[in-house]
Amino acid sequence: MIKKFLIKAKALRPKLNTTTHFAECSVAPMGAGDSAVIDFGTHLVGKVKIKFSYDGSPPDAPAFIRLKFCEHISEIDEDTSDYRGWISKSWIQEEYVHVDDIPSELKLNRRYAVRYIKIDVISISSKYRLKIDGASVDASTSAEKTVEPCGENARAAKIDEVALRTLKNCMQCEFEDGPKRDRRLWMGDLRLQALANYKTYKNYDLVKRCLYLFAGVSDKNGNIPACVFTRPRVIPDDTTMFDYSLLFIPTLLDYFTETGDKATAIELLPTALRQIEIAKESFDGDVLRDSDKLGWCFIDWSLELNKQCSAQGVYIFCEKCAAKLCELLGKDASALYDDAKKKTDAAISAFFDDKLGLFASGKDRQLSYASNIWMCIAGVFGKEKCRDILLRLEKTDAIRPVTPYLYHHYIQALIDAGESVRAKEIMYGYWGGMVDAGADTFWELYDPENPDASPYGSRTVNSYCHAWSCTPSYFIRKYFSGDKND
Amino acid sequence: MIKKFLIKAKALRPKLNTTTHFAECSVAPMGAGDSAVIDFGTHLVGKVKIKFSYDGSPPDAPAFIRLKFCEHISEIDEDTSDYRGWISKSWIQEEYVHVDDIPSELKLNRRYAVRYIKIDVISISSKYRLKIDGASVDASTSAEKTVEPCGENARAAKIDEVALRTLKNCMQCEFEDGPKRDRRLWMGDLRLQALANYKTYKNYDLVKRCLYLFAGVSDKNGNIPACVFTRPRVIPDDTTMFDYSLLFIPTLLDYFTETGDKATAIELLPTALRQIEIAKESFDGDVLRDSDKLGWCFIDWSLELNKQCSAQGVYIFCEKCAAKLCELLGKDASALYDDAKKKTDAAISAFFDDKLGLFASGKDRQLSYASNIWMCIAGVFGKEKCRDILLRLEKTDAIRPVTPYLYHHYIQALIDAGESVRAKEIMYGYWGGMVDAGADTFWELYDPENPDASPYGSRTVNSYCHAWSCTPSYFIRKYFSGDKND
Repeated sequence: MIKKFLIKAKALRPKLNTTTHFAECSVAPMGAGDSAVIDFGTHLVGKVKIKFSYDGSPPDAPAFIRLKFCEHISEIDEDTSDYRGWISKSWIQEEYVHVDDIPSELKLNRRYAVRYIKIDVISISSKYRLKIDGASVDASTSAEKTVEPCGENARAAKIDEVALRTLKNCMQCEFEDGPKRDRRLWMGDLRLQALANYKTYKNYDLVKRCLYLFAGVSDKNGNIPACVFTRPRVIPDDTTMFDYSLLFIPTLLDYFTETGDKATAIELLPTALRQIEIAKESFDGDVLRDSDKLGWCFIDWSLELNKQCSAQGVYIFCEKCAAKLCELLGKDASALYDDAKKKTDAAISAFFDDKLGLFASGKDRQLSYASNIWMCIAGVFGKEKCRDILLRLEKTDAIRPVTPYLYHHYIQALIDAGESVRAKEIMYGYWGGMVDAGADTFWELYDPENPDASPYGSRTVNSYCHAWSCTPSYFIRKYFSGDKND
Repeated sequence: MIKKFLIKAKALRPKLNTTTHFAECSVAPMGAGDSAVIDFGTHLVGKVKIKFSYDGSPPDAPAFIRLKFCEHISEIDEDTSDYRGWISKSWIQEEYVHVDDIPSELKLNRRYAVRYIKIDVISISSKYRLKIDGASVDASTSAEKTVEPCGENARAAKIDEVALRTLKNCMQCEFEDGPKRDRRLWMGDLRLQALANYKTYKNYDLVKRCLYLFAGVSDKNGNIPACVFTRPRVIPDDTTMFDYSLLFIPTLLDYFTETGDKATAIELLPTALRQIEIAKESFDGDVLRDSDKLGWCFIDWSLELNKQCSAQGVYIFCEKCAAKLCELLGKDASALYDDAKKKTDAAISAFFDDKLGLFASGKDRQLSYASNIWMCIAGVFGKEKCRDILLRLEKTDAIRPVTPYLYHHYIQALIDAGESVRAKEIMYGYWGGMVDAGADTFWELYDPENPDASPYGSRTVNSYCHAWSCTPSYFIRKYFSGDKND
């Protein structure tokens, strides 16, 4: 923990902007066993209040109710009682509440990510029925301005609108990964949020705060954890991920490129460079250890994925970013470029399959989009060869991306390879699929071929507003509609 | 609703006195499925706080816990999930809570009646375990002073101690019937609480406030409801009970006798007298209607009880109290005395069975303690005859009292009949039975022969601190130990 960095992060803690949204509620008075659904019309993040009154005799016993807060309509009727996933059931946004005083306004202490509230009356006196007179959400965000959706057509604009809302609702006191779950700052998510933020809400201080938080919680060895906890106090997660530690580097580079804030870049450069040094320890020569020996490297929520090749791609990409950052700050970058060249050559000889014209990963030579996407992003080959790889992939049964996070890198790789048209098709198809499925915000996971997919053993704990899926707003503005808001 | 009375009641609303009680907690850190019990060492009424910390990795998901607040040790292991009683399950003091920030102190918003808290960890991340670092109750009461337990021996003093705590814990912004359930002001309970209060805490203003609350919520006809709701606003219950409306009269008489507060007695006298007028409408001639035609009359929590005779006893007793109150205030009481005499004569000829030497109630001539107790309290016969009736009862299988409420009247009737020794034996036996069963406060119901008795279909919702059982403190001080504290 580096105190001076945490002091800077604290000084940058934003004041949240709050707007109150009301929902009408025209349900009949409810007795035991009755249910009602409140719809706020869109996805909101904030504190909920519900006004109750009664019909019949004076309430002579509390009303005992269950409140289920749903981001997406599919959650309303999910049976949460049989949840058996491997992450904690405690993430399910469900409360059991005694309403003692009626009429009254129930003010819930916790923050929810919510469009729908399902209310079940579990128990109530038979002498009265519970009435819902209205509900409101004091929705919060640290986004400070309104950004108009844009795009070349109505569908693009709709996708942008949903992406903008996704980013806005994840912008709280930090860039959160998801306001339902995990409600905290993860490095991989931060990088994509920051990119979308530069093209939209332009809250540079929030990025700066998050960079200082990560740098501030680095361990004795200088390693950055995958995630930072900020409540009730700032501490690092004890999880580190090979790729997430390295992604601090492009995030710092992007921040400096966008803002020109040289003081921050200079102050955090040693932390950034330290990630390269630490990552180097995972190499045997210039080839990264196979994924079973690598420790956790995220890449995508695909449990079968071999990550040896894609992780080396992340390394090369980040090392080049480190070199560029050094150059921009007037420091010598030659050693970094030299090392990146060695890792590039080694990657081609270790992973590229000349017969297939594709990268293959691990001792079983696994074919995946992930490996090829990251090698392209790392620029191990020129534009034409990357284009060939990315188009060739489509004709294989290589393991496909399952998260918007890896889809982002896929879109970026296609654009970098000059395949903007294909990138746009894939982006509108993938994110458009979520819009077609009723998304107000984009999801943590979306597998068009398997709508029930969850890495957690049950979609009940999936997040339906997840920061890493907000980047259509970045792509649309940067590449697809002439940076209208830039 | 009579506004001027409610304004007076509001002005008398007490400031609660709060003392903080801490419980040590030396349980091992808990994972999913683990439980712990916190013991505060005695019965308390107030707001609960629990300090949580963790063991292991940083908490990466909320802890989802169940808290069960128990007045009596028997509640800890009761399975509340299968509660099927006829009053609302919402009375069960159980909460499901997400603890988001750890370490932190959980502050629960509701007030509980509690000695034990059982904590079950329903769901938690496998990366950490929940630690309980301590718990506290900010215990509240409107009792303003400490009263030392007294009694002729250790057992009597122990009974007094428990009775004093029962009264104190029911003294909140009103005299509540029970701080777990129903947490509100009932007329029958108030009368007994006021009697015990005069001998102990002497909070006269709280009695005065409650008298004004009842008078203030009388209906257009002048009828006093059985109970007053004060939260979220003052309204009458739509339940009236024949006996409870009438018991306003002795409660006002006792208040005036104790305090000499003539202004209040004069102001509330018309309300008191109105209850007699209204009760008269339930008579056919001078005999009360049978209990199936009477409407609700409480008497005792015995569902099989025929109340025709005991209700007539309550009427006569209350009419005599009204007459006495008139006399004390210099008003003409002769009509009341005359009517009481007529009702007395009619009661003897309608209900007294010469062969049995006991009162019998209803068309089935049901034998019960209730009928005979109330006829004795009403003084329909002289002392000797009442003594004979009360002792004779013990040799029958007359329906016995099931609540401390009717036991109170039994004890009072015995004392009035000169049977103080028997009264004491019965009181120490009955209330002592609760002490032997671990009572920190006396209960709503206690049937020595049927420990699972409940008028609600399940003892899970029974109240274990119930005001109407506090009167040993009254009897001990007034009759059994020379009014030590008076």
